[in-house]
Amino acid sequence: MQKKPTILITNDDGIMAPGLKHLWEAIVDIADVYIVAPSTEQSGVGLSITIRNPIQILPVVWEKATQAWTVTGTPADCVRLGMSVLLDTPPDLIVSGINRGANSGRNVLYSGTIGGVIEGILRDVPGIAFSCVDFANPDYKKATPLIAPLVKHILEHPLPKGVLLNVNFPDTEEILGIKFARQGRGFWIESPDKRLHPEGHAYYWLGGKWHEQIEDEESDVHLLKQGFAAAVPIQINELTDLSHFYKRKEHFNKAFN
Amino acid sequence: MQKKPTILITNDDGIMAPGLKHLWEAIVDIADVYIVAPSTEQSGVGLSITIRNPIQILPVVWEKATQAWTVTGTPADCVRLGMSVLLDTPPDLIVSGINRGANSGRNVLYSGTIGGVIEGILRDVPGIAFSCVDFANPDYKKATPLIAPLVKHILEHPLPKGVLLNVNFPDTEEILGIKFARQGRGFWIESPDKRLHPEGHAYYWLGGKWHEQIEDEESDVHLLKQGFAAAVPIQINELTDLSHFYKRKEHFNKAFN
Repeated sequence: MQKKPTILITNDDGIMAPGLKHLWEAIVDIADVYIVAPSTEQSGVGLSITIRNPIQILPVVWEKATQAWTVTGTPADCVRLGMSVLLDTPPDLIVSGINRGANSGRNVLYSGTIGGVIEGILRDVPGIAFSCVDFANPDYKKATPLIAPLVKHILEHPLPKGVLLNVNFPDTEEILGIKFARQGRGFWIESPDKRLHPEGHAYYWLGGKWHEQIEDEESDVHLLKQGFAAAVPIQINELTDLSHFYKRKEHFNKAFN
Repeated sequence: MQKKPTILITNDDGIMAPGLKHLWEAIVDIADVYIVAPSTEQSGVGLSITIRNPIQILPVVWEKATQAWTVTGTPADCVRLGMSVLLDTPPDLIVSGINRGANSGRNVLYSGTIGGVIEGILRDVPGIAFSCVDFANPDYKKATPLIAPLVKHILEHPLPKGVLLNVNFPDTEEILGIKFARQGRGFWIESPDKRLHPEGHAYYWLGGKWHEQIEDEESDVHLLKQGFAAAVPIQINELTDLSHFYKRKEHFNKAFN
């Protein structure tokens, strides 16, 4: 019998989030699973790491043979401590989610769900982030049957180094399939809500509203509206705008050297 | 007389950080400057936004005609609230820093300093992030004479939309000039330090040590070691690995549709 792959699960909605449980159920029979998740919700923290506060790690009783821990930090902290303190060997894959709410378009860098996966990518551990577009009533059960086949496919046909897969499930009645997609351009822009504290001073909820952009037909934002799950290969190893670098290098260096 | 450009300053070391004061001094004579900075240090928060806690904005008395505010949040929160609540019109430029410590190589996405600038880029406001490699004894005075000429140069020769400039100053005796650079590959990896709380339970400091990689001669990491300031054009509008997207699209879509 072939050895099962080792998969580390994290998320940004915290250890108690239903999306985490559904992600675990989706893959527990095809992998040796470890869970390292934040003890509290970490939505919107992106790739944050906790460097000015101490962090605690606590074991959690989980089902079947799965070992689980909570970390008083961010998803990136979970992966950092998972790989340096908790697991003996690097996992074959990191999966994160299932997030409650979309991580499509240009929200990628705000997402704690994706932050945990980026942390693995930086040290050449492949990863997949899963999110449900529907924030109000996420239907994880509709999404989960797609997860094991997708995870197997990626383990058998790996992504290039430095590339993660960002998967969003649509909020349509039915999921029509999974399409390989491009990152869309829309993002959540602030929509500040000013309130008065009982003592009289002002405070704000940052809020958010979708900032619509013209979208490519192969973008995740567009495909999700059509009812497809969208899987975007996101690369984070080279953020230099190389074409601009080569175009401008000489002119810039002449001005400053 | 030509109207001065409007520049918004933020940082991640907080309103009281010496680096912020030096950045302000470097540009106050060439621009109408507004400061919106975190009330406490926000190192390592990347593009984090505060969506589960209320935020307070407080005016701060600053020098000359500069208006300044603190925000009980992240650099990205500062830019979000600066542009939606505090400033009447979008600034011509956002500058962030001067950060205490390097933001070179693949640390870009951990940096709160750069997070504030990304927030502007998403809404087409250009931005420059400034950091000093030397964390122990940052010599901001050595760096500041380079800032006004660089800011003027970028205002006169704008970067493409979706592109920010990530500038690091070296910790060498002398700064030899500023080179246009590529993002390096090294990054700070965790180096967890386990301690015992007075009550007996374990906790961790995440720590960090430089994770050396083979570096291109035109990378920021390499040029900084040679004594040059390095300016990297970082693009965040398109994170799709497009070559992999086109290569794999058909194979992937056949498997799942």
